[in-house]
Parts: sequence; structure tokens; C-alpha cells
Amino acid sequence: MYRVGIIGAGLIGAKRAKALRAQDTLVAVADLSKDRALALANSYGARIEDSWQSLVQRKDIDIVVVATSNNSITLCANEALKNNKHILIEKPGGRNPGELKTLWEVSKQTQRIARVGFNHRFHPAMLKAKSMIEEGAIGEIMYLRARYGHGGRIGYDKEWRANPEISGGGELLDQGVHLIDLCRWLGGEFSLEVGRVHTFYWDMPVEDNGFLLLRSPDKKRFAHLHASCTEWKNIFDFEIFGKKGKLQIWGLGRSYGTEELRYYKVKPEMGVPDFTSFSFPEEDRSWDLEWSALIDNIEGRQSPISHLSDAYHALDIVYQAYDQSGLKF
Amino acid sequence: MYRVGIIGAGLIGAKRAKALRAQDTLVAVADLSKDRALALANSYGARIEDSWQSLVQRKDIDIVVVATSNNSITLCANEALKNNKHILIEKPGGRNPGELKTLWEVSKQTQRIARVGFNHRFHPAMLKAKSMIEEGAIGEIMYLRARYGHGGRIGYDKEWRANPEISGGGELLDQGVHLIDLCRWLGGEFSLEVGRVHTFYWDMPVEDNGFLLLRSPDKKRFAHLHASCTEWKNIFDFEIFGKKGKLQIWGLGRSYGTEELRYYKVKPEMGVPDFTSFSFPEEDRSWDLEWSALIDNIEGRQSPISHLSDAYHALDIVYQAYDQSGLKF
Amino acid sequence: MYRVGIIGAGLIGAKRAKALRAQDTLVAVADLSKDRALALANSYGARIEDSWQSLVQRKDIDIVVVATSNNSITLCANEALKNNKHILIEKPGGRNPGELKTLWEVSKQTQRIARVGFNHRFHPAMLKAKSMIEEGAIGEIMYLRARYGHGGRIGYDKEWRANPEISGGGELLDQGVHLIDLCRWLGGEFSLEVGRVHTFYWDMPVEDNGFLLLRSPDKKRFAHLHASCTEWKNIFDFEIFGKKGKLQIWGLGRSYGTEELRYYKVKPEMGVPDFTSFSFPEEDRSWDLEWSALIDNIEGRQSPISHLSDAYHALDIVYQAYDQSGLKF
Amino acid sequence: MYRVGIIGAGLIGAKRAKALRAQDTLVAVADLSKDRALALANSYGARIEDSWQSLVQRKDIDIVVVATSNNSITLCANEALKNNKHILIEKPGGRNPGELKTLWEVSKQTQRIARVGFNHRFHPAMLKAKSMIEEGAIGEIMYLRARYGHGGRIGYDKEWRANPEISGGGELLDQGVHLIDLCRWLGGEFSLEVGRVHTFYWDMPVEDNGFLLLRSPDKKRFAHLHASCTEWKNIFDFEIFGKKGKLQIWGLGRSYGTEELRYYKVKPEMGVPDFTSFSFPEEDRSWDLEWSALIDNIEGRQSPISHLSDAYHALDIVYQAYDQSGLKF
Repeated sequence: MYRVGIIGAGLIGAKRAKALRAQDTLVAVADLSKDRALALANSYGARIEDSWQSLVQRKDIDIVVVATSNNSITLCANEALKNNKHILIEKPGGRNPGELKTLWEVSKQTQRIARVGFNHRFHPAMLKAKSMIEEGAIGEIMYLRARYGHGGRIGYDKEWRANPEISGGGELLDQGVHLIDLCRWLGGEFSLEVGRVHTFYWDMPVEDNGFLLLRSPDKKRFAHLHASCTEWKNIFDFEIFGKKGKLQIWGLGRSYGTEELRYYKVKPEMGVPDFTSFSFPEEDRSWDLEWSALIDNIEGRQSPISHLSDAYHALDIVYQAYDQSGLKF
Repeated sequence: MYRVGIIGAGLIGAKRAKALRAQDTLVAVADLSKDRALALANSYGARIEDSWQSLVQRKDIDIVVVATSNNSITLCANEALKNNKHILIEKPGGRNPGELKTLWEVSKQTQRIARVGFNHRFHPAMLKAKSMIEEGAIGEIMYLRARYGHGGRIGYDKEWRANPEISGGGELLDQGVHLIDLCRWLGGEFSLEVGRVHTFYWDMPVEDNGFLLLRSPDKKRFAHLHASCTEWKNIFDFEIFGKKGKLQIWGLGRSYGTEELRYYKVKPEMGVPDFTSFSFPEEDRSWDLEWSALIDNIEGRQSPISHLSDAYHALDIVYQAYDQSGLKF
Repeated sequence: MYRVGIIGAGLIGAKRAKALRAQDTLVAVADLSKDRALALANSYGARIEDSWQSLVQRKDIDIVVVATSNNSITLCANEALKNNKHILIEKPGGRNPGELKTLWEVSKQTQRIARVGFNHRFHPAMLKAKSMIEEGAIGEIMYLRARYGHGGRIGYDKEWRANPEISGGGELLDQGVHLIDLCRWLGGEFSLEVGRVHTFYWDMPVEDNGFLLLRSPDKKRFAHLHASCTEWKNIFDFEIFGKKGKLQIWGLGRSYGTEELRYYKVKPEMGVPDFTSFSFPEEDRSWDLEWSALIDNIEGRQSPISHLSDAYHALDIVYQAYDQSGLKF
Repeated sequence: MYRVGIIGAGLIGAKRAKALRAQDTLVAVADLSKDRALALANSYGARIEDSWQSLVQRKDIDIVVVATSNNSITLCANEALKNNKHILIEKPGGRNPGELKTLWEVSKQTQRIARVGFNHRFHPAMLKAKSMIEEGAIGEIMYLRARYGHGGRIGYDKEWRANPEISGGGELLDQGVHLIDLCRWLGGEFSLEVGRVHTFYWDMPVEDNGFLLLRSPDKKRFAHLHASCTEWKNIFDFEIFGKKGKLQIWGLGRSYGTEELRYYKVKPEMGVPDFTSFSFPEEDRSWDLEWSALIDNIEGRQSPISHLSDAYHALDIVYQAYDQSGLKF
């Protein structure tokens, strides 16, 4: 029973529209491309707005979804908050930690809910891993290890992601930031131990690979991460090692392979551990679940959706890695 | 037609004995345990020597194999060289880079061949990967990524590997050093960009995990490595990314899984690459091939066996990582 | 530029509508459920017809798609042919070979194209396998071996497929018939050597498992097939063995796993063959390709779409297996 | 504490010698090749006998192992029984069911234990599957499905297995008979519903492929089996379907892949089942366990070793399949 406005009618905006609950209503859509706005609005019986500014001012909207390219996210989000809307903005939430810090400050002065769409948290294998960790299935976490990447496509270096004015950064900011967010969600607070980004292949001013080593404040846990858009064959592999076993999440569906969670439990006698496999071949429902998690927060219930602080910390790690690598945007 | 003496009659010494060519002769064996020396010597009609000192002085020995624990390697190797023997010593070649540096210096003053047994180079998938790289199958190398680990066993932290007086270090020095050697062999020179070791689980003064980021001197190539003895389920996964494709070596046989090489070639139109799989289920012949490679060097032919300089550089990287992690042995 | 009418507005009817080319037009839809007909018609700006009889009589329709349950297929198809329409009917094409034989006879007396939707032929791995076979990649075919099955769902035995009055048969007729069609398409003519069907689990008068051994008329080729709806975990595994190698098609997407074709080539020295893997994680395009193949036939070009004779022979094999198993419908 | 004689000092004879318990003694070895007999005898401090006839007459032997080629098994075994020895003979136990029937009759008239070495029963995945079935893990068995095969090697059709005078039959009798034995052991009594053998590839008078459909006497259970020596890539895949789940045994080690048991349990809500994987990368211990199982029987304890009746029934099924295929040896 919420009234929703969407800024940005591209692929992600359309996913957000589709993820609304039956009782929610898409009221209005804004996009720099009128055609795109129209196409999305028509499918849901919504209006189009001439500008995002007019959209956020509508009185009949409760929640504003900001699904624009990175350079417009915090701008739109700020105004939406000031107009007393709840907001859901797309990851990474802005071009750099500075933009997010400001937004976070603004949000503290409102009573509105501001959340960030790190939808990977809502993949079924991740949700199950999270609950198994909380039940003690693998004991105290020691370290996490992950590989996330894709192979690009012809002309990838000419797309908006390759332009730091629009994107704020490259592969580490795009896919890598998911890994950072997942590590912090599953494994607790982390800060950057060391980070290196490099542009090996694509002819673009942003990095195509990021290598990270994170460490918890108590120095007890590590996270060893790699994000790449020169992976050639898409991969998502996320492992969590505890003192009693390990969890491995493989795949995100489609070209990343069928999503699967494997649970290895250390046997009292050690030796080769058995494992249990949970397979999730169903269509991706993460967008629906994330939307429900937003509503949960709005209505005062807990849920695992990312806060602005989560996005800020993740993006801050990305920018520290840029700094360590001598990269400036 | 070489006459061989082996110092150290344990598991590895026995593998070396078995790897001799039909025309070579095992002449003598020495081991701190007379029983162990006897068992090995008897299987090959060899004599046992009371001490390694007397073994290296025998006139009827051409090659001395040093298969002792790490703390004795360079000691024995030095004397063997001084007695004008060719030597094959086991990886990592010593407890620390200082020991290896000295040995390397000594070797320069002899006409003898001194080599180090990094047998992973001689696994069939590695040899094939090496030759494919040289033929340009994946183009210019961008980065390497590897995971190597095992799950330990009850009492692992009470074994000699856990005692730095004997071993010189922990998991990074034991399994990790293979990864470093392979990176340098396949990908050219590397130095340490950053390294962290940590002891998460086992009650021992040496590390049970090592995380490395290496970089080539020209700053163009990276290697992102992890070695662990809290991996729970044995893994060997070694990936090499070039601008035209990637190679992945998976498994080392037995509990590490059937050894396989996968070759992914980037298609002109990009998209999901096909891959070709080469499977090597046969018994491990790396020890035989390494022995032949030693003979090749002795007889003036080229071969891919590790030199003392290779071992020195690999161990130096290990010790730099210890230093960066505040670990001192 | 064809005008199309669809009889049967269920899941498959909707897939057919979606598969029309941009230049084709969905003119009319008929379904026993007016709501269902309306839903589909509305999405495409088509009309609904009160009955399939009136649909097939419309002058402004060139092609009639029959996507009803099995008991109505030949009835509708006959009338459509008599009204001078091209037809595409869903597999297996009717409830029993008798129905298909009659339809086949009718079709011979018209100038219209009559085809059957065995869409598995148009999966990318199958198309590639077909072309590799034709290029001689595996040499002369010796035998085919396949496993195809699903795990059912609660109440499966109460669905229409469990009622032989409607379906004409059980699992062998439903999924097994795909295997038979693929064997005949890829491996040439086959007849039933022996067939057994049995109902192990589901409380229904039709079989839940079918075991077949087919043989070519020249007695040189075999096909060893199993279809099951008590497979518990969905599987599609189709292997073709030739004298020079083998092809394996695994998966159909989604819960059947990512579609993959593996090509094993016998080496001159034999031993463990390498294999090349072609992966097809993209969304299922078989319906589009099958539609284009129908148009190809209509316009006089060749294409790999199933003819009525193919469907008849496949269903005849199914019914011979019923007969051998003492099953009568 | 048993004294053992081995007839046949080839590969299998050597495995049997190695599998003796520490307290057992290899007393004597006989082989048509004196060299081969000598090599084996020497490794164990045993004597060689000039003939198998003299071996079976030795008073200081309790158990005779018959590891000859198929044409000599029952001949030697008969005499061993008559000389009051326990016997362990290799699968399939003879060239044809007639030979085994006679031996079985003879054995009934002695107090000695006569068993047949179907070592696949003693693979760890099989033993675990057996015990899980008995504990009801998959409920009532419905059917079994298996693929077992290898790719041959250059000159395979010139080896003894290709000569029916020596072997008694081809691939179905060689590898296929294991499948039949396993089906009967795990799934209860079976008889041949239909069998076809064919020689597709190798230039030999025995079959290179066998296709079987077995059925239990109560007509409730099936087994759908394929054995091949034109499989190109070695495979062992054995599946057991019950009303509550399924078990899959994959691999036999080495070139057949790491042995693994997967257990799929049907969920109350059905849908994609989770599975648990048990992996057995250790060296093959089946020969040791089978030997212990023989001793168990000798000493009056139960064990899962094959009886002569098991071998007879398995071979009888093989020969019925030959008969149905018009093959006579």
C-alpha cells in the first residue's frame, strides 16, 4: 500500500517496478529519455514526470527509487529525502564516499528510511548462508575469499561504466563493491588492509581489476577478494571459512551458473569432509525480497537490507584502494 | 648411469629413489633413523651410511639428493657441493632466504649443478600450460590467481612443520612457496607487492594462512595468491589470465582431485567462451620428469627445473611477507 | 507477414505467441477458458474467438497453432488443414499414433504445411551437435544413450497428464517422446527393439517411467533411453557415440542445469580424450528458432522442424512400448 | 593366520597377495609363466609351484585364490575344493553359467567356503550406499540405472578378453557382470527382462557393448544397464532410485574419477532436492576389505562377499542376453 516513484527507467528501474508488491502502486516515472520513461510507465499504468525534480515533489508518493547512473544518485536522493520520501537507491549509492557521506548526514536529519540496493544479499544462497552462520554452522569466521568477474563485451570500454565522471570508478566500484558489502554483512566490520587496482586490458581511465585484502578491526579476520571485468568467463565464487567448516556460494544464475550453496563441516576425525549442497535454479527473486526488506524497515521491522552507512563504508574501501594504487578521479 | 646418494629416507627420499632412471644407481642412503635408512637402502640394494657427512664424501657418488627436513638442507647441500657433487635439494631449499643465498654463492664457485625440487612444475597440466603460454595461446599475461590448501589433520600443529626451528616457517613457506615458484616460472619475474600471514586455527608459532599480492618489475602483471592449511577440503586451483584467453589448472591428483587443464579462448565476438579440457588421471609422474630434467642440466641440455636462484627469490618473497606481517623466526 | 491464430492459450500457447517474428501478426486466440484467451489476446492486440471452430474458419488467418491438451490436437488440426491453413501442432501431436496417422493422411491431400513442435531440436546444443555430426566430427554413429526426467510435484498424479483420456499416455509419451524424436533426427531411422513402461510411484493409470531400446533398420545402431517423472532432481543428458568420438548434451537451462555440449574426440593413440565444451547459458530461444523453421518450410526452404511423419513414428514407438508392457489406453 | 596359495600371478593375483592380512601367509604361487610366478613369490617369500595341480595339493595351504584367465577358473577351483581348500575365485567366476553351476554343485558337497571376487561391492561408496539403503534412506527401491565403460586401447581386440575361448564373452561379461552383481546385491533378486549385445567397433568375435533391462521376480523393480568398451572416456555411474530419494555412485578412482556418493532426499514439499556428497579420494581398499570378508565367512561371520550362486545368476543373465542377441560361444 505504498505509492512509488522511480527515477531512472532503464534495466534496473524496470526490475524495481516489477518487484513492487501487489498492494504497492507505481505512481510516476522520470527519465532523461522520455521514451524510456513512457515505456515503463505504460506497463504499470503510471504517469511520467518531466523531471526527477517534479517527481520527488509529488505529494502522492511515499517511496522514491533512484535507479539512475551513479553520477545522479545522491543528487536525486537528497532532494527526495528533503521532500520527506523514503528512498531506495541503487548500489554503490554514489560516485564516491564523499557523496554518500553527505547523503548519510542528510538522512540522519529526517525520519525517513534511506536504503541501498545491494541485491546480492537477497540471493537465496546468501540468505541461507547468513542464517547458517548465525546458527553456528561453521563456528567463528576466520576469513572470506571471493572471485567475482565477467568477460566484458565488445565496446565495453565505451560504455558509461568506463567514464569516471558518470560512474565514479571501474570494476572494483561496480562488482567489487558487492563483495565488500557481502563481507561486511556476513563477516562483520572490515577495513582495508591493502588494495590494488589496475587497468590491464580495456582502453579506459577506470580500472578493470581490483585486488583487495580486508581485515577486521580486531585483526582476527581477513577477506581476500578479486573483482575483474577481464575474467572472460563469468564467475561468482564466495567462500566463508570458519573454525568448524566452510560455506561456498557458487553462481548467481544464468551466465554465472546455477546458484548453489555448499556446506562443508569439519569432522571430529578431520579428513575429507562431506558436504551438503543446496541448489537454487529458480529465477532470481532477490529484487522482490529486497523490496519487502525495505518495507520491513519502513514499518519498523528488522531486515537485512543495506543502510547508507554500509554503502558508505564499502565505497570508502574502494576509494582507499584507488588511493593506494595512485588512482584519482 | 649416475651414482646417487640420498640424505633423508622419509616419504620424499623414497619418491626420489623411485624416480631414478633405470640406468642410474642408488649407491648410499643416510638418515638420522637407521631403520628408515635401512628400509630404503634395502629396496634398492644400496648401502647405508652412518652419517650424511660420510655419504657426501664417498667417491663413488655423482649426485646427492637432500631430502631432509628444512633445517638440514643447506648444511648438507653445502658439503655435497664442496665434495664436488651435483645436488638436488627439496623445496623450499632451506629455512630462510639467507641460508639459500649462501648456498647459491657456494654453488657459483663450483662446476656442479645445484637444483631445487619444486616438483609442481612437472605436473602434466603445468607442463602443458607452460608450452601453451609460450605458443601464445592466451596472449600477453595479465595476472595469475591461485588457491592452494589442505585441511590439516589431528595433531598437525605438533608436527615438524609447526616448529619454525626445523621448518623455517608455516603454510606460506610450505605450500605457498610452490605458488610463488609457479608464478615466476609461468609469468616471469615477480616481487612482493604485499603479503600477510596469520595463524587462525592451529596452535603453533607459524602461520596457517598466507595472502599474497605479487607484481612484476614493470608493474604490468599481478599475482593474487592464497595458501592455507585450514582449507578443510584440499584444493589446488591455479589460473593464468592473458589478453586472449585463460588457463586453469585444477587438481593435483588424489585428494586434490583429478588434474585438469582448461583452456578458455576469447572469441572475436566475445561472449561465453568455449573451453577445451585436458584431463590427467594418470599417476603422478612429476618426480620422474624432474629427475630427468636434472640430468638434462647436468648434461648441458635445457630443462624447466628450478635453480637455486629461483628458490632464493621465492623464499625471499615468503620472508618479506613475514616481515610485513610482523612475524620473526 | 503471416497472420496467425492460436488455439490453446496456456503456457505453451503464450510461448508460441511470443515467438512470432516482428512481421507476423497474432490475429485471434481461442481457448475453452475465455479469461485465458482474453489475457493472451490482449497482450498482442488480437481478437478472441468463441470457439476453435470459428477460429479455423477465419479467412484472415494463414497459420493455425494448436497448443491444446493432447486430446484436442488432431481434431483442431484436421479442421485447420481442411480450411486451408498451415498448422503447427504441439508435440506429441495427438494422443496416439492412430490420431496422427489420420492427420498425416489428411495433410497429404492439402498443399498446406503441417509441422509438429518438438522444440528440443532447436536448443543450441542440439543444433550444434547436429551440425557437428553432419561434418563427421564423431564418425559413423554407433549408439545413443539418454536420460530425461523430472521429479514431479505435489499432486502431479491429479494433473491432466495423469489422465489418459486427455493425455493419451504418461511419462514416455510426454518427455520420452522428445528423446525418440531426437534419436531419429540425429541418428536416422529407428524402430522399437524393446520397451517397458511402469508406474512405480504416482497414483495414476499412466506410466511414470519408460525404458526403451531402439534399433536402426539395418541393425547397426542402438538407442538406450530412459524417461522418468520420479527422477527427483531434473536431468537431461543425451549422449551420441560415434566411431571417432562422442557428443554429450547436458542440461536444458533452469532447473535442468545450464545447457552444455561436450565433444570428446578419440585420439590416434587413444587414452583419455580431451574434450571441448560449448556452454549455452542464454535464455531458451528454441521457440523462436522453431517458428522460423516453420516459416522456412512454408516458403520452400529446408529446415530441421519435425514433420507429421516424425511425430507419427515417435508416437508409434511409444505405443508399441505400451503394448509390450501390457498397457492399453 | 591363514596359509594362502595363489594361482595366476598377473595383475589381479598381485593385488590379492597385497591384500592379505598381516597374520596371513602367502605360501605358494603358480603361473603358466615361471617368471611371473617367481616375481610375485619373491616379493612375499613364497615358493613357486610347477603347476596349479601341485599347488592345490599342498597340505600347508588353507585358501586357494584363483586369479587366472576365465577359461581356467572353474578347473582350478574344482580341484582346490576337492583338496579341501577354501577358495576365492575372480569374477565372473568362469566362462559361462554352466561352468559355474557345476562348481556350485561341487561346493555344496564340501564344508569349504567358496567365494567370488566382485570387488566393486567393497568400494567405500558402495558399502555406504548399501548401509544407507538398509537404514531406509531412500525408501523402497524402484529401479537402478547404470553406465559402466571404458575406451579401450590400441590393440584391445587382440587381447585375451577378445577371445571367447579364453574369456567366455565380451564387455557384458567383463564389466557388465559387475553391474548385474551390484544390482542383485543392492536391489534384491533380478532376472533378465531383455538384453542385447552388439559389436560396434572392435574387430573381435565378442561384444563391445551390452544393453540390459532387468526385472525383479515380483515385477516391481527394474534395472536399466549399459556396459561398453567404446565409451571413449572411462565412466562408472550407478544410480539407485527409491520412493524417498536417490543415491548416485560416481567414479571408481583414477581414470574413472574420484569416487563419490551423492544422496538426494525427496523433500516433503518436493521441488529441487538438496544432496549430501561423500567423497572417497583415498586409494582403493576394496581388495583388503574383500579379503577380510572372505575370512569372516570362513570363520562363521556374515559379510557381503559374493557367493557362487551370485556369480552363477549374474553370468546366467549375461548368457541369456547373448542368447537373445543370437550370439553363441
